[in-house]
Amino acid sequence: MKKILIFLLLLPVFNTFAQNRIEKWRVFELTLKGTSKGNPFTEIQVSAEFTNGNQQKIIQGFYDGNGIYKIRFMPQETGTWNWITSSNSKPLNNKKGSFECIAPTGNNHGPVVVKDTFYFVYSDGKPHYSFGTTCYAWVHQGDSMADLTLKTLGNGYFNKIRFCIFPKDYDWNKNEPLIYPFEGNPLKDWDYTRFNPAYFQNIEKRIAQLDSLGIEADLIVFHPYDRWGFQNMDPQTDERYIRYIIARFSAFKNVWWSMANEFDFMSAKKMEDWDKFIRLFAENDPYNHLRGIHNGAVWYDHTNPLITHASIQSEETYRAKELRMKYKKPVVFDECRYEGNIPWSWGNLTPQEMVNKFWRGVTNGGFVGHGETYVTENPVKMPHESNDNLWWSKGGILRGQSPERILFLKNIIESSPGYLKPADLFEWWMPFSAVSYKDEYYLAYYNLDQPRSQILKLPEKSRYTIEIIDAWNMTITPVEGEFSGRSLVVLPQKPFTALRITKIKR
Amino acid sequence: MKKILIFLLLLPVFNTFAQNRIEKWRVFELTLKGTSKGNPFTEIQVSAEFTNGNQQKIIQGFYDGNGIYKIRFMPQETGTWNWITSSNSKPLNNKKGSFECIAPTGNNHGPVVVKDTFYFVYSDGKPHYSFGTTCYAWVHQGDSMADLTLKTLGNGYFNKIRFCIFPKDYDWNKNEPLIYPFEGNPLKDWDYTRFNPAYFQNIEKRIAQLDSLGIEADLIVFHPYDRWGFQNMDPQTDERYIRYIIARFSAFKNVWWSMANEFDFMSAKKMEDWDKFIRLFAENDPYNHLRGIHNGAVWYDHTNPLITHASIQSEETYRAKELRMKYKKPVVFDECRYEGNIPWSWGNLTPQEMVNKFWRGVTNGGFVGHGETYVTENPVKMPHESNDNLWWSKGGILRGQSPERILFLKNIIESSPGYLKPADLFEWWMPFSAVSYKDEYYLAYYNLDQPRSQILKLPEKSRYTIEIIDAWNMTITPVEGEFSGRSLVVLPQKPFTALRITKIKR
Repeated sequence: MKKILIFLLLLPVFNTFAQNRIEKWRVFELTLKGTSKGNPFTEIQVSAEFTNGNQQKIIQGFYDGNGIYKIRFMPQETGTWNWITSSNSKPLNNKKGSFECIAPTGNNHGPVVVKDTFYFVYSDGKPHYSFGTTCYAWVHQGDSMADLTLKTLGNGYFNKIRFCIFPKDYDWNKNEPLIYPFEGNPLKDWDYTRFNPAYFQNIEKRIAQLDSLGIEADLIVFHPYDRWGFQNMDPQTDERYIRYIIARFSAFKNVWWSMANEFDFMSAKKMEDWDKFIRLFAENDPYNHLRGIHNGAVWYDHTNPLITHASIQSEETYRAKELRMKYKKPVVFDECRYEGNIPWSWGNLTPQEMVNKFWRGVTNGGFVGHGETYVTENPVKMPHESNDNLWWSKGGILRGQSPERILFLKNIIESSPGYLKPADLFEWWMPFSAVSYKDEYYLAYYNLDQPRSQILKLPEKSRYTIEIIDAWNMTITPVEGEFSGRSLVVLPQKPFTALRITKIKR
Repeated sequence: MKKILIFLLLLPVFNTFAQNRIEKWRVFELTLKGTSKGNPFTEIQVSAEFTNGNQQKIIQGFYDGNGIYKIRFMPQETGTWNWITSSNSKPLNNKKGSFECIAPTGNNHGPVVVKDTFYFVYSDGKPHYSFGTTCYAWVHQGDSMADLTLKTLGNGYFNKIRFCIFPKDYDWNKNEPLIYPFEGNPLKDWDYTRFNPAYFQNIEKRIAQLDSLGIEADLIVFHPYDRWGFQNMDPQTDERYIRYIIARFSAFKNVWWSMANEFDFMSAKKMEDWDKFIRLFAENDPYNHLRGIHNGAVWYDHTNPLITHASIQSEETYRAKELRMKYKKPVVFDECRYEGNIPWSWGNLTPQEMVNKFWRGVTNGGFVGHGETYVTENPVKMPHESNDNLWWSKGGILRGQSPERILFLKNIIESSPGYLKPADLFEWWMPFSAVSYKDEYYLAYYNLDQPRSQILKLPEKSRYTIEIIDAWNMTITPVEGEFSGRSLVVLPQKPFTALRITKIKR
């Protein structure tokens, strides 16, 4: 608030405002004062060229209302960046300046990118193991609910959250959003040529808050749960909207683009439309943020080279191993049904089964996303009559028992010595799924089965320690002894058993 | 024992022996004294023509050792049956007689046949809902183990049991059988042209004992778990063996023919061999007993019209609904993994998951088979070193918790008003599988999910009672009130929930 006040005071004097010094991968924001006449969204173009040695980027700006234009830039190199603006409007043209880009500090690891075909990595080299959640409409529930959601996310269960840019209309989410993305009134006089900057400012505030918590913002560009017309906009509006959100959001390092939720449930869009949207992002996002597309009943062909990772809705998370090979990309089960108690088939998993789906996905070389749908209203209501707060839709608090166990798994994975891949060492008849890092580390999971023993075929030239993990009770118990070659291990004979096998370094 | 003594005493006097009077569907056995010279198995043919009004059957006999020939016949009509033998050996030729076939009594319901495409029925019209189990080698473990197995089966959990005609060589089943199906010594001098009658007498004793318990004997004709050579016999031997077991066993009303267990794991056999075996049974079994073939990794094409039902190995029992439509036959998941604790992937289901697979199969219009693989030896041994008694292999006692729950389900299904088919009434988004009988009765199952409520779309013109079933705790609790049309039902919010919905008859 204070910053905005200073900013407003300065504006009459300087019509250009920007930082002098920012960290690599942070948002450099150039604010320019221009005209508010006519329709600045459609009539005014403004961009800036940023140069640093032989590095050069042309970045599109956007109109933010009240005669304010902004150009946001995420520097990916340290050193001095010079900039110069270009516009068809004189007050915005030929402005110059420079800033110093310094090394990142603290938890600034830069944007997440794909590494070694199947994995994610932050730009500074730190591995990113995706453990996501879903709160489709959390940014449209006002500040107090958003604050509560952020507080919950602060517990560190998840490092990615999927949510919709447009408001959502669905069971348990019939409330009207506080503000709308376009000027005008719902279903009366939308002016699709004029965005409502406040709507997008709210979203970017949330993106920045997530970033401060180390959480990736997986932005859902289109979705079918809509009563306002946003799923049926014309192609020109769709494209203008995409270019606008790229200009506004792409400088935030934690942004991922999800073309749609359940793209195939949007009857007004054809497969060519989705291909076109993907290409629009690929060609116009200066930072090449991760791009996915989430399916309903029909799967997108994730072999499209402009898709960076396979974003899958399927409860069969164990298929990660097969889908890796099919798509040759990271496989993220962004939706595998939700922990909850609602009457819809996708929202009544036990916490046990949610945890199981995480372990199965991860020990088959994939990534899995969480969601939660607990209704608590009394008396029980029909879904369309209920305005209960379900995490999956509105955020707020978590009621389930899976997040704590997901965090337990996340901690195990984050402490592994390297990226884990499906383990060749283990044979098909072995009753678990397993991943390994070279011959140094194995993680095997027994699903909900209850074997009493395991015959392992460990490498003969090394010795290993074995720990038995109880994935539900979150215990890790060392097995006495050292193991090598063909080894018989006695197991606790109950569901949620996993093994962590670590090579002993001499 | 007494009967056999009398029989032996009579033989020197009469060289033909048979009953005068038997129930429909029981075994009429004609015993003839002939030569034991040469090789009666290959050199002597004997058959009998049975006639009763315009009914006529030619039935092949078989050599039972010690100069004894038998012709077994299962009459399918009451009244007087006349018979006359035919043979290339004079003492067996042109023998005549008759017997009276009387109405069945007690639990004699006749052979099971297919009804209305997807179901089984006893020949007297009583529905047969298949609830099977598997004890591959129980008939090869000697009398005391077999008696124990029969005692366990007497608890009524199951009405079908799958087992192998040949002995079995596999982990936890390395013991030598007491006797062999052929003359000679293992791997030295088998004489494949001479059967060992005692071997087959033992099996038919078990078939008869099962029948007295009301249990179908699903006989596995070939299997790959073999160290004696029976999986690699030449085509002539295979065919002679098939004709021999048809002659010996087919008059037992409770016989089903399973061409193989895991047919595709028998590398010496080609698909044409299986087609040929199926045709051999179809053309030579006078009673057209049920014929199936059980898969390993490769599924047989169960659309073959000579296959009576799809015998499936798959843990995905919920696919019954889809497979019914694919094969247009009853779908029996004869193997969906086993309740147990062994280190092989197919033998370590929790009892909960075994029960779940039964409910999912049944509420998708299929039938499911049980199996149990609990190792109890201490200390824990490598599977190939263990000679533990596992139900799945040797029979004996059941250690699991699923059989009692399977019986609970069996009782529910057997008390339904008619054959249940996948319910059209319920829509895809409803979180359960459901079957119904007309609009009179619905059975819906929620898998391991935990919905808190259900919106049902019941027929509006009738009123229904609803009961909540806990499939694990085996309780049935009526919901207060009567229901009609769109109805909200509050559920207990835990796994193993099912609903039984019954039309109120005014």
